[in-house]
Amino acid sequence: MSDEMNGAESLVRTLIAGGVDVCFTNPGTSEMHFVAALDKVPGMRCILGLFEGVVTGAADGYYRMSGKPASTLLHLAPGLANGLANLHNAKKAGSGIVNIVGEHATHHIKFDAPLTADIEGTAAPMSNWVKTSPTSATIANDGALAIEVARQTPGQIATLILPADTAWGPADTVGETNVPPAVPKVSDDAVKAAAEMLRNSERATLLMGGAALRERPLELAGRISAKTGCGILAEGANTRLARGAGRVQANRIPYVVELAQEVMKKAGNLVLVGSREPVAFFAYPDKPSLLMDPESSSTELANTHEDMEAALEALASELDCLDVTPVGIAAAKRNPLPTGEITLPAIANALSALMPEGAIVVDESITSGREFFPSTAGVPPHDWMNNRGGSIGYSMPVSVGAAVACPDRKVIALVGDGSAMYTVQSLWTMAREGLDITIVIFSNRSYNILRGELTNVGVQNPGPRAVDMLSLDRPDLDWVSMAKSMGVEAARSRTAEDLAKALDAGLHNEGPYLIEVAI
Amino acid sequence: MSDEMNGAESLVRTLIAGGVDVCFTNPGTSEMHFVAALDKVPGMRCILGLFEGVVTGAADGYYRMSGKPASTLLHLAPGLANGLANLHNAKKAGSGIVNIVGEHATHHIKFDAPLTADIEGTAAPMSNWVKTSPTSATIANDGALAIEVARQTPGQIATLILPADTAWGPADTVGETNVPPAVPKVSDDAVKAAAEMLRNSERATLLMGGAALRERPLELAGRISAKTGCGILAEGANTRLARGAGRVQANRIPYVVELAQEVMKKAGNLVLVGSREPVAFFAYPDKPSLLMDPESSSTELANTHEDMEAALEALASELDCLDVTPVGIAAAKRNPLPTGEITLPAIANALSALMPEGAIVVDESITSGREFFPSTAGVPPHDWMNNRGGSIGYSMPVSVGAAVACPDRKVIALVGDGSAMYTVQSLWTMAREGLDITIVIFSNRSYNILRGELTNVGVQNPGPRAVDMLSLDRPDLDWVSMAKSMGVEAARSRTAEDLAKALDAGLHNEGPYLIEVAI
Repeated sequence: MSDEMNGAESLVRTLIAGGVDVCFTNPGTSEMHFVAALDKVPGMRCILGLFEGVVTGAADGYYRMSGKPASTLLHLAPGLANGLANLHNAKKAGSGIVNIVGEHATHHIKFDAPLTADIEGTAAPMSNWVKTSPTSATIANDGALAIEVARQTPGQIATLILPADTAWGPADTVGETNVPPAVPKVSDDAVKAAAEMLRNSERATLLMGGAALRERPLELAGRISAKTGCGILAEGANTRLARGAGRVQANRIPYVVELAQEVMKKAGNLVLVGSREPVAFFAYPDKPSLLMDPESSSTELANTHEDMEAALEALASELDCLDVTPVGIAAAKRNPLPTGEITLPAIANALSALMPEGAIVVDESITSGREFFPSTAGVPPHDWMNNRGGSIGYSMPVSVGAAVACPDRKVIALVGDGSAMYTVQSLWTMAREGLDITIVIFSNRSYNILRGELTNVGVQNPGPRAVDMLSLDRPDLDWVSMAKSMGVEAARSRTAEDLAKALDAGLHNEGPYLIEVAI
Repeated sequence: MSDEMNGAESLVRTLIAGGVDVCFTNPGTSEMHFVAALDKVPGMRCILGLFEGVVTGAADGYYRMSGKPASTLLHLAPGLANGLANLHNAKKAGSGIVNIVGEHATHHIKFDAPLTADIEGTAAPMSNWVKTSPTSATIANDGALAIEVARQTPGQIATLILPADTAWGPADTVGETNVPPAVPKVSDDAVKAAAEMLRNSERATLLMGGAALRERPLELAGRISAKTGCGILAEGANTRLARGAGRVQANRIPYVVELAQEVMKKAGNLVLVGSREPVAFFAYPDKPSLLMDPESSSTELANTHEDMEAALEALASELDCLDVTPVGIAAAKRNPLPTGEITLPAIANALSALMPEGAIVVDESITSGREFFPSTAGVPPHDWMNNRGGSIGYSMPVSVGAAVACPDRKVIALVGDGSAMYTVQSLWTMAREGLDITIVIFSNRSYNILRGELTNVGVQNPGPRAVDMLSLDRPDLDWVSMAKSMGVEAARSRTAEDLAKALDAGLHNEGPYLIEVAI
């Protein structure tokens, strides 16, 4: 390589100048100039994943905790395809990502070599913006544009396609990224309509989503609740929910349709703050898609593109409660360590007893985890993340990114065995980077949620083949060996005492630690 | 579920009636009626994968060995996305697959639930045909259409999208699948042009691809070679190449551009039989995309849609050599078992000494495997498969499908450690189904091919970060623990004697057996 700057180097310099200084990567031949440029330009932290779903999920987790886009580096259409499921989840979570995908050199595409495929078409369904940069002279400015797109509110998936000759050809600029425009404030009308609804409804609830679930907006919601008596609810799945002792609590809308309907009936009219009228995760025969009480109505205070904290301040001001003491604040409380059999309450109590301050919980426990909210409400302040896009295999990759963003905080991944398998390669990256993650695997040896779903869709007595397709035994997954195979320390818990001991060890370990919990 | 037939059942009955009686599956809620229907209709073998790339790759391997499409069952756009990379490989290999993807109930889509995304758009780049069936009454006929598409020559990827209400709604038909039309014969002109080229060229070669690489077409090529002195070559990567003692040999075009150019220079003019003028896998600065000698020309005897065996018969007849003894037949020969250090020749000799008759080799050894052809040329007859689409992580899933298609044959997967990680979940399906597969993992602890590619693209002295992104050590992958974690027996080889012993054990084992070879 000569000392002249090439396109790859101009892109790396543009990324760093634009504040994108972490790159989660799984590169191939067409990305080799980008990889080589990393040694010519200081300031980019590169983290290798052994599967692309790890890479894209990590970028999601990184954004959730840092508020900054990371970049990815993926290999042509199939490499991108492997990362799409977690890009889907990131897009639904409003996470900004500069998603860089290598492509054949422009003159090579027409020869239809083995890896040739429609990259723009592959990217489109899971991206907010897609562009193939045409030359090495344009890549820097296209990179700057991608950063600007990714940095919008909420964050966007900006897919930048980088043909190999665009990387190896000459370049002489570093792209300049414009400062993101101020997040728009909501209209006075929206504030007045919300105040009106809260004043005049028999029952009303603030339904909070997205960035409304941080500490300060929740506190404002607590003041509004104190003044008007309204409820406070979070959507069923949330990008990042501030919880713990001293914080205003927001419970989640349940997954199960009948339970959600009950909650929504009690909620009454809805003031939407970064949320939508709630919708069932799936459709079922003879069950509704919309979960709201048909006799209730809703008004939108702020959407996800708007400044929600300012909107809640304006609403509190309109209601004259900016200085009222908030209600719904969680009192400090830890449950005692569990003993005896491992049950869901025992796991909940172990978490309650041991979760450290500042923990980041990445929750993909599916059938096992819905019980954990009450018992962890009063533990020290922490963040709780859910899967917004519903594509399983999100939690271990998101944990990687969260741990990279917050090296001083403990990440706790709660994940079912079936879910963990989709992106199991995450364990290797955790070990390589020494990431401070405790992974709790709920080993129920089945796609247990689907057994319930069989009933929900009307199948009362599933036959042996149906049951077989939902069973993960034959053979049992041995998670301690799995962790060991990728360099992660691990323990198996068969009693609540084991679990408490292992969780304590994991939470005090520096680096990743996996606990297999037989349930 | 009532006794009335629903859409899911009508689809399962249609598949079985159409000869599609294997389903590789990773289902979710929206596919539960399909899963339930499996117990109402006998005759479908269902095989669960814990990741969708296992499912689609298995369908590829199944088609390659059985010549019949299998069906898949995937969960909405993200589940499909996880299967796309191996669908890409299957599409490039000409493998027919009935790729079934669940979707939300039609009335639920507009509510943009978490898993909602553009499934047709996600499927399009890696499918030959995409259709969303609109109602439960149409799904049977749409299923029959998908089977007809998948069964074309070469096989096609037919993606059928199945909204949940299409599955649970009433149905009263079983779709009828038309018998595939006869594969078209090539024109007399094509035969005459090929004969002309072989008669008049100083140097000429039959370049064979796709279905031309079975035993009988190769034998015809051997007769034509005997008569005209032409060479016989296979494309660089092949769907299924018949090899071994008593069979006419076809060597592959090398991957490395300079080596390929040398081979193509010697090859002279090309008669294309199910192949194309050869193209470099990647573009590199200052290297050509087209590998053919610029002074040579080509003529197409048969394309992949045509009957290649009949074309070669017509050519042999035109050249009056149908009864000539073929040249290029491999003599029976096994190399002695290796001793001492593990080197590539030692591995080649172990394979040469031990490969059983009828073996199916699925080769994804990348940097390690190119040396194995000469030493295995004379072992008992077997088939050898390559990755046609270049997306890594193909070999273990394809091995699953090949083993399902051919329970009486031994499958041997040769795979680099980096490649194996992409679809490592395959091991579990191998264990569950007791599939007769010996997996040889070349553990070089790096993306070794990419180190060469750094040089190829002009990076002479890669820096420490670039090297780090291509290294799989820190931590080393422990493949014996990995196999154990998913119920697969395994051994580690550190000497050639170890390797010979482990390979012998694996090849005599019933069921999967993994060998980690430290190189």
